[in-house]
Amino acid sequence: MATWATLDCSATQLADLLGPNSTGAAHFICDQIAGVSTKLSDTAYAVDTTYLLFSAYLVFSMQLGFAMLCAGSVRAKNTMNIMLTNVLDAAAGGLFYYLFGFAFAFGGPSNGFIGHHFFGLSKVPSATGFDYSHFLYQWAFAIAAAGITSGSIAERTQFVAYLIYSSFLTGFVYPVVSHWFWSVDGWASAGNTENLLFGTGVIDFAGSGVVHMVGGIAGLWGAFIEGPRMGRFDHSGRAVALRGHSASLVVLGTFLLWFGWYGFNPGSFTKILSPYGSSGSYYGMWSAVGRTAVTTTLAGCTAALTTLFGKRILSGHWNVTDVCNGLLGGFAAITAGCSVVEPWAAIVCGFVAAIVLISCNKLAEKLKYDDPLEAAQLHGGCGAWGIIFTALFATEKYVNEVYPGKEGRPYGLFMGGGGKLLGAHLIQIVVIIGWVSATMGPLFFVLHKLKLLRISAEDEMAGMDLTRHGGFAYVYHDDEDSEKPNVIQLRKVVEPNTSSTPPSV
Amino acid sequence: MATWATLDCSATQLADLLGPNSTGAAHFICDQIAGVSTKLSDTAYAVDTTYLLFSAYLVFSMQLGFAMLCAGSVRAKNTMNIMLTNVLDAAAGGLFYYLFGFAFAFGGPSNGFIGHHFFGLSKVPSATGFDYSHFLYQWAFAIAAAGITSGSIAERTQFVAYLIYSSFLTGFVYPVVSHWFWSVDGWASAGNTENLLFGTGVIDFAGSGVVHMVGGIAGLWGAFIEGPRMGRFDHSGRAVALRGHSASLVVLGTFLLWFGWYGFNPGSFTKILSPYGSSGSYYGMWSAVGRTAVTTTLAGCTAALTTLFGKRILSGHWNVTDVCNGLLGGFAAITAGCSVVEPWAAIVCGFVAAIVLISCNKLAEKLKYDDPLEAAQLHGGCGAWGIIFTALFATEKYVNEVYPGKEGRPYGLFMGGGGKLLGAHLIQIVVIIGWVSATMGPLFFVLHKLKLLRISAEDEMAGMDLTRHGGFAYVYHDDEDSEKPNVIQLRKVVEPNTSSTPPSV
Amino acid sequence: MATWATLDCSATQLADLLGPNSTGAAHFICDQIAGVSTKLSDTAYAVDTTYLLFSAYLVFSMQLGFAMLCAGSVRAKNTMNIMLTNVLDAAAGGLFYYLFGFAFAFGGPSNGFIGHHFFGLSKVPSATGFDYSHFLYQWAFAIAAAGITSGSIAERTQFVAYLIYSSFLTGFVYPVVSHWFWSVDGWASAGNTENLLFGTGVIDFAGSGVVHMVGGIAGLWGAFIEGPRMGRFDHSGRAVALRGHSASLVVLGTFLLWFGWYGFNPGSFTKILSPYGSSGSYYGMWSAVGRTAVTTTLAGCTAALTTLFGKRILSGHWNVTDVCNGLLGGFAAITAGCSVVEPWAAIVCGFVAAIVLISCNKLAEKLKYDDPLEAAQLHGGCGAWGIIFTALFATEKYVNEVYPGKEGRPYGLFMGGGGKLLGAHLIQIVVIIGWVSATMGPLFFVLHKLKLLRISAEDEMAGMDLTRHGGFAYVYHDDEDSEKPNVIQLRKVVEPNTSSTPPSV
Repeated sequence: MATWATLDCSATQLADLLGPNSTGAAHFICDQIAGVSTKLSDTAYAVDTTYLLFSAYLVFSMQLGFAMLCAGSVRAKNTMNIMLTNVLDAAAGGLFYYLFGFAFAFGGPSNGFIGHHFFGLSKVPSATGFDYSHFLYQWAFAIAAAGITSGSIAERTQFVAYLIYSSFLTGFVYPVVSHWFWSVDGWASAGNTENLLFGTGVIDFAGSGVVHMVGGIAGLWGAFIEGPRMGRFDHSGRAVALRGHSASLVVLGTFLLWFGWYGFNPGSFTKILSPYGSSGSYYGMWSAVGRTAVTTTLAGCTAALTTLFGKRILSGHWNVTDVCNGLLGGFAAITAGCSVVEPWAAIVCGFVAAIVLISCNKLAEKLKYDDPLEAAQLHGGCGAWGIIFTALFATEKYVNEVYPGKEGRPYGLFMGGGGKLLGAHLIQIVVIIGWVSATMGPLFFVLHKLKLLRISAEDEMAGMDLTRHGGFAYVYHDDEDSEKPNVIQLRKVVEPNTSSTPPSV
Repeated sequence: MATWATLDCSATQLADLLGPNSTGAAHFICDQIAGVSTKLSDTAYAVDTTYLLFSAYLVFSMQLGFAMLCAGSVRAKNTMNIMLTNVLDAAAGGLFYYLFGFAFAFGGPSNGFIGHHFFGLSKVPSATGFDYSHFLYQWAFAIAAAGITSGSIAERTQFVAYLIYSSFLTGFVYPVVSHWFWSVDGWASAGNTENLLFGTGVIDFAGSGVVHMVGGIAGLWGAFIEGPRMGRFDHSGRAVALRGHSASLVVLGTFLLWFGWYGFNPGSFTKILSPYGSSGSYYGMWSAVGRTAVTTTLAGCTAALTTLFGKRILSGHWNVTDVCNGLLGGFAAITAGCSVVEPWAAIVCGFVAAIVLISCNKLAEKLKYDDPLEAAQLHGGCGAWGIIFTALFATEKYVNEVYPGKEGRPYGLFMGGGGKLLGAHLIQIVVIIGWVSATMGPLFFVLHKLKLLRISAEDEMAGMDLTRHGGFAYVYHDDEDSEKPNVIQLRKVVEPNTSSTPPSV
Repeated sequence: MATWATLDCSATQLADLLGPNSTGAAHFICDQIAGVSTKLSDTAYAVDTTYLLFSAYLVFSMQLGFAMLCAGSVRAKNTMNIMLTNVLDAAAGGLFYYLFGFAFAFGGPSNGFIGHHFFGLSKVPSATGFDYSHFLYQWAFAIAAAGITSGSIAERTQFVAYLIYSSFLTGFVYPVVSHWFWSVDGWASAGNTENLLFGTGVIDFAGSGVVHMVGGIAGLWGAFIEGPRMGRFDHSGRAVALRGHSASLVVLGTFLLWFGWYGFNPGSFTKILSPYGSSGSYYGMWSAVGRTAVTTTLAGCTAALTTLFGKRILSGHWNVTDVCNGLLGGFAAITAGCSVVEPWAAIVCGFVAAIVLISCNKLAEKLKYDDPLEAAQLHGGCGAWGIIFTALFATEKYVNEVYPGKEGRPYGLFMGGGGKLLGAHLIQIVVIIGWVSATMGPLFFVLHKLKLLRISAEDEMAGMDLTRHGGFAYVYHDDEDSEKPNVIQLRKVVEPNTSSTPPSV
């Protein structure tokens, strides 16, 4: 930033040009220019912070999206439970990310494995470029990871287990991964220009791996160790759909996630005022930000359409909840490469993402793996595809613009950029699976052994809302109004301007 | 933009002033100023893009608003269907607007009828001022038009018909209209300063005509050709209200549309950093943007209150869904003139809009026209009123500020600006009705003849969710919990790939 | 603003430095600098307006949040009623705040008690710094106050009473309070540097007192005069939970309020481009804005967690709606001091806020005070705590940065800043309670005496939706599909802490 605003007005040089006795005038003029320069700096801080904060608010709105998507996807009897976990993701995540998470992730200067400054936001804002707005933005990412996992283990997990894993994931497991790939000190970061893995580092721009795979793999272990919900597979082993209780909430949640993804992906630039090439031209980071919003949109749209027709062929009907999941799979996939691929490539990304999701779901059914939100399949599977996709389709021009400071870096294999990026990205997939399995796997296993993981069969039959959360989420009927006990009365009500008599309630 | 940031520091002139042997110094100083100038340009691009992108996100959130409004306004049995159409508006719209729509609308330089550059976003960003963010913004508008139409034909249209008309509308019909009125090359555009229709062009700032009338007239033809839903008019021809299933979703959708309208109307400036008159003053485009948000708000508020009292008198009760529709009618009306009228005039606009909507609804009932969302009445009727309103109340000052580059242009008739603007605006109404009727009318008619438009009577009775979309949207009750068979009717629906037979509802 | 952008290039001084015959050159150069200066001004207006407008949109989205929170918290039979009041808050508030409210609040220059310019937005934008965007922002605040009150009197208030009190509150009572504490002319404003109350004025940055206490106290009087809902306390005087009908709407509303609070608190700076100390440094108002978002977040998170465990201990289950209320209590409390306290202090604020809310609820139950939304307890109680908290924890540095222009002003008692701020803040609490009681108390009492306040017992039994608003909010079932009339089962669920037995599902 400072570099961008700096105007190098040399008073000495100007004095030479002005001739004898002009030192005073030269200083006067260069002081004016310096004054302008600092004001341009102020402006840039204000513009970039505005951009980042509103992006952070958008990402935060994804937590609402998750809450609604999860609520709609579970049965009515577990709605309070799943929504509480979503509220607490944000709340517990806020404290743990404040105390530890942000420090582990971005607390540089540090080693390549983990950060160790900024605990409790001490020394923030720092002259090295971390301000409160960065914390807010990264916190919103951290809670998204935890939100993904909660979907996988919905409808059968003890609330206490939830609190434990969520804090551990937001406060430690996720921050470490984000340090590796996003901190300038991270061992696999594309911004670590001193020491790039395979000469390239990993280009996981907004976190197909860092966020989505982490959340998905964590969910995979939780759901695997717990086993499927009662009734999910019948006696002969066939899958039985346990439909969520509200498609309206699913669509609401999906659109909110779409809305928030515009903070997630384009927002990951974390600023917008930065020229590319020559200053003063119409092309700059602002264009790249817009392009990122477009690639994100196109990947999601394509995945939605592919899923629509794919599921129509496979299941015989037009299914809105499947289309919603397909859409989100497209977004999860484009998240890694959104800033470095062409719009047409985003269409390829979304198309394949839909197929990956359908395939993962088929496989899950075969393996009798039960994930009420398809979270492991969607965020894990499509996230992994997104990482590979980036290594294939990243363009030279965009890679160098978005990750400057190191000329001639590798780019997408299919774009002629060689295989180094693909190598680094395969490493990323392996390492994320390894790290999350090594941390979250044992955690879930210990909880399981301590009988803290899965709820009792009685609780599962009755629903957790009734047994643990004070009652059902919905009370559409009032005993007061009724003389007939087991009935409901949301009868068709006819407007007064028709001939019908009003209902006799 | 470039003009705004350009500081004309002439080194020659400065050298003359500085005296002999000062060419070097003059160049040095003017180079500094030129450096400042390019940085101011950078800043303007970043500020304007931030403004435009976040406005685009707001407009996108209207799609969620439409989805919820539509869902709440139909019967429970068609909820999945209508929500799926809303998701697909956005998704199919994304691809078609990327491939064709944006090119037809803004692909200049072109003739006055249709654009022909930027297919698949080639040559974007262009030095002529189109960046990715403009595409995103215009895409969000295009899908809004399709969303309007989907409301008119809800609860009785085959899904395939929906896919066909939506792609055609977003990819061709709507882009052409937006070219006419919004592209600088458009034959009726107020920005076409070379060749202004009636010396004024049409001032349809954010699209009362371009978006709302187009969507509304398209819906009118669809709903007219299909005929009313079963049971909408009884044997004696009296209207029977087929109440939507959730007022909460209606209110949610309405508020989201209100929220998004702040992107739609004030966002239509597409930038915010531009002085009016002398630079450096507190009054500039930023003020006009704020004023546009205020006129929008006041028109909606007035329309809501007018509807509240109007419907109280007519129907005897305080009706929240009618108030919501009235509010949206006020917004649809102010959309054309929001940037060029005074706040007090917006109150007039909203007041009349509410009366227009009530009258259109009365008329529709008389004509046995059935539009589940009142979309043709609201977007068509109030949209047309908004176009006329603008021609009556546009002020001289604001017209010249918002549409600069042509002095002495006509403005509102009641403000002393003569009748030319009204003439142009009446042309707009006629032309939009003609074009949309000539394209969408035949399309719906052909679909009708091919038996691809309306669903079967059985499907309509049972609801499309059950017959076409895999089951009802809501499952508030779990078979597992119940011992009484016939007590609920949102039964668990089992996917076709299981052994269960489909529910016999 | 003007001050920030002004670069003092003195042509005379420069001419002296340049030597003889250089007046022309000096003017030339200083004119260039002046040109830069005005462009920097333009930029600042655009950046600050962008920031303010999008903050206003966020605050507006809180109205949707209120609507959903209220809807979910009442019984199904009153859903239409409460949502209509929320829509009308915004609509009637729009007109009354346009006509009177904004003038009473900010129409300076004025006396310390009430403003008297800007009626109907005349003379806006004004050179003194009020633009349309300020009106929009303040309107969104005004309707929030009315929204709070509507919660307290839900489920038993005549719609006409609602229209009367809401207009009075938004058009007069609230604007006067905001004048006292927020207008530079206000007698207790911290910005009234000519004449600071106790040498400090009241630091109620975003309105724990001005908005939340005003809304809460108004609701307290309304609910107190009306008395509790039928069935809220049983024959033996024990409290019976009248559960809201949809926890999903409660969570949706809560998250939307959280989202909107980022406009409410950080937005209250009303601009973002302003350096603190030396210009050009990374630390400025942008940092303070980000910090405010962080303190807001941490206070809410802590309050949510405290409530979770507190209620678990008290009631035996993990209650999501209580957690939502706790979260909102934390936000209401941090609102006063959000910009002037350290993040760690925000955690203290949230922790105590949760305890305050639980205590107020206990007290309300004892006093047989019935507030369906806990609005008086939450906004009144936690709001008052927030005012005290600020007087204890405001830091010297932040107070001087956020309220500049008066050196050595008092700050938080616990931070070593003495007791003056606490004195002023206790005055604020007393004065707000006094003013709101003196205006809203009599209003509610007169309405009560005129039989215009409370609905009839029959209406209350049947629900207002049916008797006044045209029918129930929900129609999940269609007579057309059914041959059996008495079906569906979303039975009333009774909380475990009442005497009823749990439903035998």
